[in-house]
This record gives sequence, structure tokens and C-alpha cells, in this order.
Amino acid sequence: MNNYSIDVEVSEVGPRDGLQSISPILPTEAKKCWISALAAAGVPEVEVGSFVPAKVLPQLADTAELVEHARGIEGLRVAVLAPNFRGAQDAIRAGAHKITIPLSVSETHSLKNVRRTHAQMLEEVSRIAGLIRETPENQRPDFEGGLSTAFGCTLEGPVAPERVVQLAEALMQAGCDEVGLSDTTGYGTPDQVRDLTRAVWRAVGRDRLTGIHLHNTRGQGLANVVAALDVGLRTIDASMGGIGGCPFAPGASGNIVTEDLVFLLEGMGYRTGINMERLLEARQVLRDSLPEEIELYGFTPEAGLPKGFRYA
Amino acid sequence: MNNYSIDVEVSEVGPRDGLQSISPILPTEAKKCWISALAAAGVPEVEVGSFVPAKVLPQLADTAELVEHARGIEGLRVAVLAPNFRGAQDAIRAGAHKITIPLSVSETHSLKNVRRTHAQMLEEVSRIAGLIRETPENQRPDFEGGLSTAFGCTLEGPVAPERVVQLAEALMQAGCDEVGLSDTTGYGTPDQVRDLTRAVWRAVGRDRLTGIHLHNTRGQGLANVVAALDVGLRTIDASMGGIGGCPFAPGASGNIVTEDLVFLLEGMGYRTGINMERLLEARQVLRDSLPEEIELYGFTPEAGLPKGFRYA
Repeated sequence: MNNYSIDVEVSEVGPRDGLQSISPILPTEAKKCWISALAAAGVPEVEVGSFVPAKVLPQLADTAELVEHARGIEGLRVAVLAPNFRGAQDAIRAGAHKITIPLSVSETHSLKNVRRTHAQMLEEVSRIAGLIRETPENQRPDFEGGLSTAFGCTLEGPVAPERVVQLAEALMQAGCDEVGLSDTTGYGTPDQVRDLTRAVWRAVGRDRLTGIHLHNTRGQGLANVVAALDVGLRTIDASMGGIGGCPFAPGASGNIVTEDLVFLLEGMGYRTGINMERLLEARQVLRDSLPEEIELYGFTPEAGLPKGFRYA
Repeated sequence: MNNYSIDVEVSEVGPRDGLQSISPILPTEAKKCWISALAAAGVPEVEVGSFVPAKVLPQLADTAELVEHARGIEGLRVAVLAPNFRGAQDAIRAGAHKITIPLSVSETHSLKNVRRTHAQMLEEVSRIAGLIRETPENQRPDFEGGLSTAFGCTLEGPVAPERVVQLAEALMQAGCDEVGLSDTTGYGTPDQVRDLTRAVWRAVGRDRLTGIHLHNTRGQGLANVVAALDVGLRTIDASMGGIGGCPFAPGASGNIVTEDLVFLLEGMGYRTGINMERLLEARQVLRDSLPEEIELYGFTPEAGLPKGFRYA
């Protein structure tokens, strides 16, 4: 599957955002099998891990090895998270294609989460951008600033769109190639998705914000995707089986479910390059490697594709 | 709550579409309590039952009594299903404000479901329309033709939009006041919702199609609602706790979940007239009256409203 035939890019964040909230550590080989199965299904981008200290998130301690494995898969774009300069160094050394540094729009959340103010985080972004500039061109990763809690914060409540716009500008000035919007708390509504995207576009340019990371905490995930597509965003994060985030009750998952997202996109006429049957095989690979008590979500895997279903 | 302050009408179909797939029969008093609690939360319309023979659906045998009860609640619009002339007679006698007769666009499904061809169903619609004309004006219900399997059929597969349009025209000619679109199988996509609504509008007029009945079988329910709102539909069916339809696995429900729908609508700036806290009280009334093994779905009830949430 060649990239030119893709209308919307699905970025699978399960190996990072999904696994980071699961305590039993998956063997590295199991993660590799899953990543390979995702790629074999046509998933164009996988966020394979995060370069955080192993003692903070032991589940993600093998991120460098996963980057190396994923880089060996032709056509796959290998994304990672790096919360700081040290992590970015490791990410560049490992050879990631894309590095995302999360910046929480809620400073309260930022202080609680990474113990850094906005100013300190922006300083870190500048240092990473400098490092990337010094990296030989053929090894230089894309560098994204991920605006988390952009749609509201469980600590601060509503987040002013002006604050999101200011921080998007600051991230670009500090040296990011692009910014991303992240509904960390599942507060977002379709109107917010449209309005906030347009506001950030006006500040940093349309080509500097192309993707969105949505959660399904209040069941609004795919509704927000429809708004994201309407406004013109073309990279959507999702997690296989909806793993990750803050699971509550039956059906409550953190991330939006990759399988349901692909059905939505193909059904709407957007080519994803992803084959549903092989995606369900990748789901089985994940299922087989996860402890039984970890539930996989998703409606389409259970209901199956509609009779007579056609890809976009 | 006065109707003039409502932008989008939520029609609660749980007492009909939800309960009809639950075998343990709920006491009539429990149903009355639930309907009253729904109305107390501000739900403007409730489909309280279906006038089918008691031996076919014993759960709905008390529909006449529920209509009488619901008619006693000021401001509540009382809707019922009637699959045939006999049912419509009973519905008029009971005093329903609105009668919906379902017509399956898939004739295969129609024959299997009600053992009637399209021609036979349209003949039934004509007879009911005649009966309504003979009914004293102040007791005359609204009469809707519900186009089920409009987005695809589990037996026939894809359903041609032209067929939906033809049947919408035929229903209007046979004497319906309006038509409704129903995604019985959960096959629908946001594009289909927009395109099909516009196609039917061109044929019968915009004021003759204002509502939609969506299922969440493949997790696309609220995504389809966003499309329905975008195109301009203003009555959305939903079921408390997502009961009804064809439940599969964790999170899979038939109908879209009223609680999540109200959060979506209010979050998007559409006034529903519904109070979320009281809606959750109504959910508790339902929970208390349902057998334990019946699961209630919905994300918002578990996650709670966002900090600083404001109604539209």
C-alpha cells in the first residue's frame, strides 16, 4: 500500500498510550509481533513508545528496541513520545521518524504531570530543536509539540482557546515543526474541535496542525472525529481495542478505538490504506499477548463489517 | 421547561425499543416510574410502547396503560409504534400523540419481520390514514412512516438510496404526515446520513423529515448524530443506557445512549431542555427495576460531566 493512496492517516498509539496504563509488562517480542501485525494491516504510523526513565514507566523501558524493530518495517512511520531533552536524545539515537513532546495547556496539570512550568517546557523544546538542527539531515526526526488538555482539564476545568493558541505559537517559535491537539480528558465537543483547529490554524498556519488525539471518555470520540474531518484534519490518533486512557465502566475506554475509526473513515469514503481483516488479525495478536483481565473495546470487531461493505 | 427553549428534541425510545428485547417482563408500575422520571428530567418525547399482540411481545402488553399514564404528564409528547391497522386503532383509542408505522426498505426484511410486502404495508398505511382522518381533530395523532433498514440490511446488504426515496414518497402519498429514517442495522455512516436526508428532502420536502433513529452497533451512533445535526435534522431517537437493539460485547449496544447524546448536544450548544443530574436519576430508576444481568451502557454516566460543564 503506497502512501499516495491514503486520504486520512491513522496513527496507532496503542503501544505507547495504551500499554503505558497497563501494569503487567508485555514481553518485547510480543510488542514487536503486534507492531508488525499493525504494519501488515496497512497502518501507516505507530507510536511505539515513550523515552521516559524505566523506573517511571517500566512498561515502556524497551522503547529503543521497538524503534529499531519498527524502523525495519518498510513504509512504516515510527513515532515516539519524549517528555524532555534527555528523552529526545534517546529518540534521535534510536532513529525515530517523529518525536512528540507533550505540553499541557493547563499549567496545573503540567506541574503535576511533569513538574515543569510552561516556561520550563518551552526551554526544553528549544534545546531539543537545537539538537535536531545539529542532527545529520537524513536522521533528523519531525518534531511535534503536542498540546495536551487542550479541550479542558480535570484540575482547572475549562481551558481558554486563547491559551491554546498562544502555546501553539510559542511551540512553533521554540522550534517545533508542527503542533497537535490532544483531548486528554475527553472533554471535547465537535464544535470545540472545529473552532480550536481553526483558531490554531490562523495563528500558525494550516500545514502546521494536521493531526488530533481524541479520547472517548464520554463516548464522543468518533463524533469529534467527524468534526475533525469536516474541518480538514487528516491525521487521527487511535488505539487498538481502545486500550489506554482512563477506563471506567463497560464500554468506557480512554482512546478512540482504531477498529471503529477505520470503519468510520472507509465508510465515509476516506482511504486509510488499512485492511480490516488484517487489522482484526493484529487485534488477535494483541489479545493473545495481553493478560486476560485487560478488556479490549470496540464495536466493529464484535458486530463485523456490514454485508456488502466496500472500502473507500 | 417550555418547548420554545429546545433546539434539538431527544426522543426516548427505551420503553419501546429497549424493553422489547429484554425478556423478563417489567411491572407496569416500574415502567410508569421510569417514564415519569424521564419526563421530570425534561425529556420532551417518550415512545412508551408498541401496539402489537401480547403474545408476540408480552413485554409491551401494557402499552395502552402506559399511554394513559404518560398522557397525564404535562408537556410530554407520547409516541407509540403500531405495525398495522389494528395497532393504530388501539393507539388512537389510547390517545397517543404520535403513531409510527415501520416500513422496512428491504422487502426481504419486511417479509421476514411483519410478513408483508411493501404494497401490503402501504395499503395498511392508507387505511390508518383514513382512520385518522375520521378521528375528531383534537384526538388526531401525528402519523409517521418510519423507514427502517434505510442504511442497509443484514439480509440484502446495501440498500439503494433511490428505493428509500421512492418509499418515502409512497408513504406520504399513502397519508403519512412525515417520514423518519432508521438505521436498524447500524450500517450507516455520516456521509450516508447527510446524503440520504437531502435526497428524501428533495422528494417530500424538508418539513416532512425532521428525525432520525440511529443504532450504535458499530460505534458510529454519535458520529452519525453529528452529521444529522450538520445537515439540519432536529429530532434524535435514543435509549437510556443504550438498552435495546443487538447487544454484542462490552460497550456494544443497539440504540445510541440518551445520556451520551444529551452531553453531546448540550456540549455543542443545542438546548435539549434536559437536566443531566435528573436524567441520571431516571437512569437509577431504570437500573433499580431491571434485572441485574441487563447491562446499562453509556460513558458520560460513568465519567461524569466535565469540571466546569455548562449547558447550552
